[in-house]
Amino acid sequence: MADSKGTNITWHQGHVERKDREKLLSQRGATLWLTGLSGSGKSTVAVAAEKALLQRGHLAYVLDGDNVRHGLNKNLGFSPEDRTENIRRIAEVAKLFTDAGVIALTSFISPYRADRDAARAIFAPGDFVEIHVSTALETCESRDPKGLYKKARAGQIPEFTGISAPYEAPERPELVLDTGALSVEESVAALLRYLEEKGTLSA
Amino acid sequence: MADSKGTNITWHQGHVERKDREKLLSQRGATLWLTGLSGSGKSTVAVAAEKALLQRGHLAYVLDGDNVRHGLNKNLGFSPEDRTENIRRIAEVAKLFTDAGVIALTSFISPYRADRDAARAIFAPGDFVEIHVSTALETCESRDPKGLYKKARAGQIPEFTGISAPYEAPERPELVLDTGALSVEESVAALLRYLEEKGTLSA
Repeated sequence: MADSKGTNITWHQGHVERKDREKLLSQRGATLWLTGLSGSGKSTVAVAAEKALLQRGHLAYVLDGDNVRHGLNKNLGFSPEDRTENIRRIAEVAKLFTDAGVIALTSFISPYRADRDAARAIFAPGDFVEIHVSTALETCESRDPKGLYKKARAGQIPEFTGISAPYEAPERPELVLDTGALSVEESVAALLRYLEEKGTLSA
Repeated sequence: MADSKGTNITWHQGHVERKDREKLLSQRGATLWLTGLSGSGKSTVAVAAEKALLQRGHLAYVLDGDNVRHGLNKNLGFSPEDRTENIRRIAEVAKLFTDAGVIALTSFISPYRADRDAARAIFAPGDFVEIHVSTALETCESRDPKGLYKKARAGQIPEFTGISAPYEAPERPELVLDTGALSVEESVAALLRYLEEKGTLSA
C-alpha cells in the first residue's frame, strides 16, 4: 500500500472480511425484518428475541423507532417520500450490521410492499428474513398500548395504518408470527428455530 | 406487557442493555473517528486496526466510502448541505454501532470542524474518539493513490480538500497519527494503546 512504510507487515495484509467477524461471533450476520400493524407485538418479539439470543451468546441488535427515528431519521417526516426514505435508510443500516456479523432485528410497521421489497433487494439472498407479525387488527386495536387506535378512530391521526391507510401484508415472508395465537416465548422460539435451521446461529 | 400472554416469563423481562452486549464482547463500544486529508492513510490505519482488533478477539467495523457512500448516503451529493448530512448520518450510524458494543472506525475526510463537533455532540462523553491522521499535505499529494491531487491541481476537481477547499484540523483530538512519520504498525499500536488505556478493550 502506498502509505505503508513497513515491508515486513503480514498482519495487515488483506481486509477483515465478514466471515472473519462471523467466526469471532460464532454466528452469521442477518437482518430480521419484522413488519406488522401498530400493536402487533413487533417490538416485544424483537426485544425478547434479542435477549434470548444474547443469553445463548449471540450478538443481536434491535433497530426501532427509539434509536432510529430520533437519530438517523430525525430529519424525515411522514410524507410518502419520507416514509420510503425512512425504510431505505433502516435497510441500509441493517445491511451494515449484517455485514458486521450482527443479527439485526428491525421493528417498524413498514406497511408498503414496495418499500420492503426494495429493502430486501439490497441484501444478498438469505441475509434478509421477512417476518410478518400478523396479529389481527382487532387484537392490535384491543391492545392499543399507546392509545393510537383510539385517536385514529377519532380522526385525530391521519393515515393511520390499518384504519385510514393500508397495510400490505407480505406475500412470501420467511416467517409468520401471530402474537394473538402465540405467546411471546412461542414467537421467540419459532424465530430461533428458524435461525437454527438456516445455520445463522453457527459460523 | 400488553402483548404477552405468558405470566411466568422471566427471560424477556427487561431489555438487553449496551453493557450486556459489551460483556458478551469483552469490550466497550466506541467510535474512532478518523479525520484527515485524502491520502493521509485514514483507511489504511482503520483497516489495519480493524484486523489487529479482530486478531485480539475484538469486534470492530470500518465505516468508509465503500460501504456508506454507495449505500446509506447514495442520495447525497457534494453541496455544503449534503456534506453536512453525510457526516451527520455517519455519526448516527456509528452511534448505533457503539450502542451495539462494537468498536466502529469511521474513515472520512470530514474537513469541517463544525460537522465533526456536531458528530461528537450526539455521543456520550468518552464514546467518541477523534483521531487526526495529520499526515502533511505534501506527503499526501506525493502519494496521490487515486490521482486525485493531480486532477485537483489541474482544476478538474472543484473544491478539493487541501487544494481548493479548506481542511480544518481538530483542535483537541484524542489522538494524532502522522503516517508520514509513523508506519502503519506504529499507528495501529498507538491506537490500540489508547484503547487499552481507556479501558475499551475490556468490559
